[in-house]
Amino acid sequence: MESFKKVAIMGGTHGNEFTGIYLIKKFEKFPQLVTKSSFETLTVLSNPEAFRVCRRYVDKDLNRCFVKEILNNFLGSTYEENRAKFLNQTLGPKENPQVDFILDLHTTTANMGLSIILLSNHPFNIRLAAYLSSIEPTVKIYSWIEPDKESSFLNSICERGFGIEVGPIPHGTLNAHLFEQTERLILTILDYLDQCNQNDISKIDNTVTIYQHLKTVDYPKNKNGEIEGMVHPELQGRDYEELKPGDPLFLTFDDRTIYYEEEALVYPVFINEAAYYEKGIAMCLTTKESIEFPM
Amino acid sequence: MESFKKVAIMGGTHGNEFTGIYLIKKFEKFPQLVTKSSFETLTVLSNPEAFRVCRRYVDKDLNRCFVKEILNNFLGSTYEENRAKFLNQTLGPKENPQVDFILDLHTTTANMGLSIILLSNHPFNIRLAAYLSSIEPTVKIYSWIEPDKESSFLNSICERGFGIEVGPIPHGTLNAHLFEQTERLILTILDYLDQCNQNDISKIDNTVTIYQHLKTVDYPKNKNGEIEGMVHPELQGRDYEELKPGDPLFLTFDDRTIYYEEEALVYPVFINEAAYYEKGIAMCLTTKESIEFPM
Repeated sequence: MESFKKVAIMGGTHGNEFTGIYLIKKFEKFPQLVTKSSFETLTVLSNPEAFRVCRRYVDKDLNRCFVKEILNNFLGSTYEENRAKFLNQTLGPKENPQVDFILDLHTTTANMGLSIILLSNHPFNIRLAAYLSSIEPTVKIYSWIEPDKESSFLNSICERGFGIEVGPIPHGTLNAHLFEQTERLILTILDYLDQCNQNDISKIDNTVTIYQHLKTVDYPKNKNGEIEGMVHPELQGRDYEELKPGDPLFLTFDDRTIYYEEEALVYPVFINEAAYYEKGIAMCLTTKESIEFPM
Repeated sequence: MESFKKVAIMGGTHGNEFTGIYLIKKFEKFPQLVTKSSFETLTVLSNPEAFRVCRRYVDKDLNRCFVKEILNNFLGSTYEENRAKFLNQTLGPKENPQVDFILDLHTTTANMGLSIILLSNHPFNIRLAAYLSSIEPTVKIYSWIEPDKESSFLNSICERGFGIEVGPIPHGTLNAHLFEQTERLILTILDYLDQCNQNDISKIDNTVTIYQHLKTVDYPKNKNGEIEGMVHPELQGRDYEELKPGDPLFLTFDDRTIYYEEEALVYPVFINEAAYYEKGIAMCLTTKESIEFPM
């Protein structure tokens, strides 16, 4: 049976994603909200300097810094690299952590509703995600696992845990409705961890729908690397909906439609996420899979 | 009769408002779109360095730099102050400009649709705004004029001209639908200026609805100046709708509702604009007025 002694809730891994940041501040002001008798809850503002300047990051995306090459480098480094080392010392070290579960709170400008972002295939993560989507069917599960690559996400410190993405919401803003939904989801997760410790978890159906990461798609660009088009109006906001061969993907500035021309049926997510323009990601394509898992 | 020899279209006065920026790039690639035989059209990327780093500004909000104290100061100054001086030399000087009309393109995270932002009461601006809202009734007119204060907006270089705000759209993103609507509005404006030069403008009704700036409202804050609440879910997205005494304004993080308690009926705009958090503005309150103007 799974058990948990120390649980970390992280907000502001990206400094302009206010929902997680102000939830952390709320939990720090009202700690009873996240206090459980069976485990200790840590609440951490991951990137306070990026929050202070209201940007995703100061020097470098913190949530791409949790690779061993950075964490084990004792030389001087950027603000976020130092912050990653500090968080790795506080919660980690990576793969041998002091905490038993990490919940990392994010927001997105994409229409992803309440999404669980699986970053490790630990069976517990799948069970918990399945439980959350069983009690709240609008909760979607996106597995962004690239098996051949070392994960650089904060969540990679600890096998158990995942990210939450909530949207659509512009960076640097709060939306009361999404704030409340996110808070409710967090409290449900803490309840579940507490029930695990009590060996008292509810039975649920052991199949679950997971959107598995396939690849990213960049914007149409000219030879200088400049964007030449936008997400097509018919695709905008349709995260987790099916994209069939022949469906419109982009509309170029000179009014040409670019179609999805591959053969496979896919389900795009992170459509038109603001922070991904610089990463060359217009959307992530996923496959929709029904997974059976052991209870 | 009004006439125009030189018209400036400005985009990227804020570096993360992509709609105007990519429209400027489009017009530079396809200049015939904005070419009229009766006047010269300039297209200007106002703040290229802020665009390069994808932020509203580098050092200081460029659209608050067009005051004489900055423009006439020959000493060293910030990036945006220098840029304001350069633009003032290129288009101005302020109040004695080389251009006859300035259109400044902005976007907002608020649900303001297509809005004309009047920054000078020149009768031509009102006539043109009235014309635009007569042919496209979803176009709203917001007059943000504070008579006792020197205007610091880029538009203050030239009496004729105004800003366009388009939303809701997260900063740092493009939305094809709003992009097309904005482009169409710009082209309609250029057609109208051309018709003025030909002395061939269509007659319209000479009354128009204008939302007059009254004051700004800040978020609820604690004694350290930290935000303690969010725009109330019942108010979110309701720009240009009436706010009556007793209507909810904010929801605090500890779930209290703060109501609008003044006596006057008002119409909020710029509700939950991301860039205004740092300015202490949760929304701007306006009064709705029906204005008669001479044709």
